[in-house]
Order: sequence, then C-alpha cells, then structure tokens
Amino acid sequence: MGRGPSRPVVGPKRRASGWTYAKAGVDRGSIREGLAALLAEVHYRAPASSGRPLALSGHYAGVVRIGRESIAVTTDTVGTKVLLAAEMGRWGEVGEDAVAINVNDLAAIGARPAAIVDTLVMGRPDRRQLAGIGRGLERGLRAARCSLLGGETAVVPEMLAGIDIGATAIGFLPNGRRPITGARLRPGDVLLGLPSSGVHANGLTLARRIVRESRVPWRRPRRGARVALGVEMLRPTTTYVGAVEAVADSPDVTGLAHISGGGVRNLLRLNPNVSFLLDGWPGAAGVFGYLQKLGGVSNEEMYQTFNMGVGFVVAVRPRGVRALSRSLARASGTPVSVVGVVEKGTGVRLPALGLRYAQYA
Amino acid sequence: MGRGPSRPVVGPKRRASGWTYAKAGVDRGSIREGLAALLAEVHYRAPASSGRPLALSGHYAGVVRIGRESIAVTTDTVGTKVLLAAEMGRWGEVGEDAVAINVNDLAAIGARPAAIVDTLVMGRPDRRQLAGIGRGLERGLRAARCSLLGGETAVVPEMLAGIDIGATAIGFLPNGRRPITGARLRPGDVLLGLPSSGVHANGLTLARRIVRESRVPWRRPRRGARVALGVEMLRPTTTYVGAVEAVADSPDVTGLAHISGGGVRNLLRLNPNVSFLLDGWPGAAGVFGYLQKLGGVSNEEMYQTFNMGVGFVVAVRPRGVRALSRSLARASGTPVSVVGVVEKGTGVRLPALGLRYAQYA
Repeated sequence: MGRGPSRPVVGPKRRASGWTYAKAGVDRGSIREGLAALLAEVHYRAPASSGRPLALSGHYAGVVRIGRESIAVTTDTVGTKVLLAAEMGRWGEVGEDAVAINVNDLAAIGARPAAIVDTLVMGRPDRRQLAGIGRGLERGLRAARCSLLGGETAVVPEMLAGIDIGATAIGFLPNGRRPITGARLRPGDVLLGLPSSGVHANGLTLARRIVRESRVPWRRPRRGARVALGVEMLRPTTTYVGAVEAVADSPDVTGLAHISGGGVRNLLRLNPNVSFLLDGWPGAAGVFGYLQKLGGVSNEEMYQTFNMGVGFVVAVRPRGVRALSRSLARASGTPVSVVGVVEKGTGVRLPALGLRYAQYA
Repeated sequence: MGRGPSRPVVGPKRRASGWTYAKAGVDRGSIREGLAALLAEVHYRAPASSGRPLALSGHYAGVVRIGRESIAVTTDTVGTKVLLAAEMGRWGEVGEDAVAINVNDLAAIGARPAAIVDTLVMGRPDRRQLAGIGRGLERGLRAARCSLLGGETAVVPEMLAGIDIGATAIGFLPNGRRPITGARLRPGDVLLGLPSSGVHANGLTLARRIVRESRVPWRRPRRGARVALGVEMLRPTTTYVGAVEAVADSPDVTGLAHISGGGVRNLLRLNPNVSFLLDGWPGAAGVFGYLQKLGGVSNEEMYQTFNMGVGFVVAVRPRGVRALSRSLARASGTPVSVVGVVEKGTGVRLPALGLRYAQYA
C-alpha cells in the first residue's frame, strides 16, 4: 500500500539443508503474494476532515495528522511465542512482549507511546493465564510509560485452542517533532546498537522447531546458561522507548530501526538508497549460537530471522556519536556499541560472514 | 479497569432447554472472571507527558488527550463470523465488518474515525481469501470515510487453521466536541433506533450452532427470504458513522449505543442511573424470528444476544426528536423509529415480552 507501516514477512527461501523458516511451515513467498492481493483492493483516500495520513510507506508505524497533532499507530502480535509460554506455563513474558513489540515500533519512527489496546483471542478463558498476561502488560506499560486504554477479549473455542496475544499502540510526535524515517540517512552515518535481551518475540516458530526436533528439554539450561532454555527464550522484549526519547530531538539522529522479524533486513526499511555495512554486529553468541549449531542453520538464515543480540539501532551523524552514545547508554542502562556504518550503494552487508541482503521482505 | 472501553462478554446463564450461548460453548461467567483476573494486575498510570486518558469506564472506546486533541481508540474482532465466511467461501462481508464494528464503536462516543489498522492471524495465506477481505475493507473504509493506516499479517500454522480478522480504529473528537457518553441522559429522553442489516457480527456462534444442529442448508433461502441463509447471515454490519456525524454536535443528543454483542443490554453501558423502557423495539422478525423458532431460543436470550433489527440507538431530548430523526434518516438513508424512552430507575425493560436486564455483562 502507498502509505502506512509495511507488514513484516518472516521466513526466507527454502534451502537444501539446515532448518529454515520455510521448512518450519511459514512460506514467505505465499505471504507476500497474499498480502499483495489484499492491498491491491484497498485504494480509498479519506477526506482531509477525517485526518491526513502521512506517507511513510514500508515503515514501522503509520502516522495520521489529526488537528494539530501527529498520531502514530502500529499493531503486532506475539505470534508463536505463546506456544512456548504454554509449554512453560509462564504468561508474564508474552504479556510484556505484547506491549514492548508495539511501543518499539512506535519508537522506530521517533513517536512517544501514549496508549495500548490489547486483543486476546482464546479458545477458553483461564484465570491464571490471564492474570499472568495482566502482570506482563503492567510491566510493559511501566517500561514504556503508557496507559492501557482498552482491549478485546474474544472467546472462540471453534477457532483455536490456545490464545493469540496482540496489541495496538497509539503514540504521538511531541512538540512538533518530525517522524524519524531514515530519509535523511547519508554515507558516513554511524549505526549504534542497543543490546537485545534474547530472541525477543521473533523467530520462535523456527527456534521451537529446532529444539523440538533435537529432543532437547525446555526445562534444562543449555551449556553455559543459568536458566532453563524455555525460560531463557521467553525473556521479554527489551523496551527501547526511554532510549529513543533521550535522543529523538537531536538533529544528529537520522534513523531508527527495531530489529524484529526479518533480523538485520529491518535496516532496509529506513532508506533504499544507501547501504548498511554491518562490521560490528555481534557473531552468533549465547542462545543464538546454540540454536544455530543445534539446527544446522545457515548464517544467512540466522541474521534474517533473529536479532542476533542487537534489538534496536540508532543511526547518527558522525559528529553526534560520542554524545548520543552516552545519552543512549544512560537512558537504557546498557552498553551501546557501534555495529556498522552507512555507505553508498544499497542493501545490508555483513562482510565477515559474506552476507548481503537486498530486500526487507 | 478504571478507564477505557469495557470488553463485551457474550453469552448468558445456562438454561434448561433451548439454545443458549453457554450451550454453544461460550461461558460468560468464566470470561468475566478471567478478565477480572487480568485487569486486577493492571494499575499503572502514565505521566501526563504520555497523554492523559479520560475516564470513560465501560464505554465503547477509550479516549486519550494528546496535546490539543482528544484521540479515541477501540479494537474488536469479527469473531466466529469468519467460520460462516469460510462455509460460504465469501470474504468481502467479514472484511467490511472488521471496519464497521470498530468505527461504530467510535461513533458510539461521538468520535469521528480517522484510521484503521487491521490484524489478520491465519494458518496459511490464501490469495483469493485475502483479496476478498481487501475488497471488504475498502467498502468499510469508504462507508466510514477513514484510511487504512497499516496492518499485521501473522501466519501461525500451529495456532489456528482458519483466519482471525480483527482491527483497531483510531478517531477523534473534532472541533472541541465532547465525548457523548450517556452521562447527561435523563428521564424523558427518547430512544431513536437505526435499522441493522441483519445479525451483523454478533451471535454467530449461537446462530451457526442452531443452523448446524437443525441440519438446515446454508445455501438455500429460508422461507420468505430471497438469498441463501448463509448469504443473509453474512450481510455486513451497517456503518453508522455518517448518521452519528450528522447529529453529534447537537446538544440534544445525550447518548449513543452500538447494539453489538450483548444486544439491548448495550444500553446499560451509557448510564447506570436511569432505566431504558424499550416499548418500540421490533419483535423477532425476519432472520431473528427464524433463528428463534429453529433453535427454541428464549426471548431473554434473543434480546441479549442479537440486535433484533436495531443496530444503533441515538438518545435525544424530547424537543430534538423531530429534527434529529429527520437528520438521522437523511444521513443514513433508512427509516428511523422511536424504540423506547428513558425513565427513572435502572435496567433495560421490554414490557411486551416481560423482559428485564439489570447488567451489561
């Protein structure tokens, strides 16, 4: 569609050996075609009296100008991470994810979250489960400093047995702030990476399939970890709202990327006319290295499916690197590292691994 | 929760004979308890710099004050109507519903829709199905005069086989309009009803169960109807946005109710300190009479599950009845009838049927 956020398409092309998203049952090509078929039917442009959508095609959130304010909206679901939550009988993490994945998408255009509405679609209401989800929502709201404004609880036993957890986040561009889209990116801009807490809520269909097929128990730690593998992989998505708010009004910030479904390919959403050279992105360490080895997964598949340790990227002008790194580190309470640089050309490159991605989806 | 829209709970208490929602597999009590367990965990109040939510507890939409604008948000899914869409192989109607059910909830507080984001969760992408949904979204957007600002397409084959269709609508209160909540309702106010197009997107779990158990074919018209029963029951939800916009700035409009899940009980969301006497609500005619007879459904169950022919109610001061009826009829292109009156007391009453409802959910 000509405006508004694009829809992430997870899963790469099929490969001969090693686990891929396609093998795990999610075919990227048919999703892309189905989505194109839907969007080909939607042309309507509302009159200006209904608000004016800004053109931010392919970006993380849509923006509509209402009266004197710019309102940002995005929606996403936790996906199959709920199946791991069910496996482990722990619901707080996915409740927190439902908030975090959406507010991070708002943060990725520089919008400040105001409110969340959640959508829970379930086969059967379960008090313990819903209380756990509520505790997670509460933690997510606190981290993002936004309010729960409502929700929908649909009980549809004929449609699914478990629960689908989604949310929509509504935010705004405060005090005349312009959306940060990546349009101003230029060669020489530096890519600062903020650490992820783990897989977040992406790649779970593949990760769960690898663990299941390998008959590895969810309830024991992998070698080198302190908590059970299932607990490690449930860890809630880090919220990057505070970090982004600390730097969003600086003119030296030129792009923001939430590293969600699609891995490093997310950078391609910012600007198609520059190249992203990722020479400082971490290697496959921790749970990522474990999953890669266990599933015989290619580097190409790993870096386009998982965040590989970096959950959010802030692109900055060279002159801003020092001050903005310090602001980001202070606001996030985590180390900030240079993960790459913007160059002339197109695509995302990880030269150490011989990888190049030309398209987001 | 203390603010924002309440979540409709469909399905009444179990009855000895005749079909009820509980018998169809949806237990109202356990939904209410599960929801209470979730909301008991959510207390956080965001700082004013994140926007200020207005207190509209139990209402159709939440409102957050962002800068100088009041932004309204609501979210809902089409529910099990998608199973009838699958039965009939027709997807346009439920696509249109996804927009209509949400914009009608915005209209029910007097907010004007600006944008929709849709959420499609499916087991497998199907181009034909998604194109049909796209055509329906387009019709819904045109009827509501609002824009599609984005969406999420989640493919989760392990979680469900079919498709769940939901959306979130974002609107606003234009030019200083205050939310119309029903707080100003008083005895003597007149209830004007706008016709529904059929069952809309409510009661489908019960209706489908009745038809299936009776072994009535979906592809033949019921006696007195011109189209197949399945087509008749798929008819998309009427959009009441235009009608509400035509009268929302009148000081004589004191309440608005979208007659969705919960049937006539929806009126109880407007004001707990008045009584709604429904002496002009239609009897069980058309598809409603057919379903009631086929399933041996009680009047109590029918009027708290289906809209029974009235999809939206506008409460007006007596002095405004004539002019506002005319405005509503002109804007909607349908007849407008007096369906009841506000009285002293509490609850909703249909004296001709001996019915009284004390609570919304």
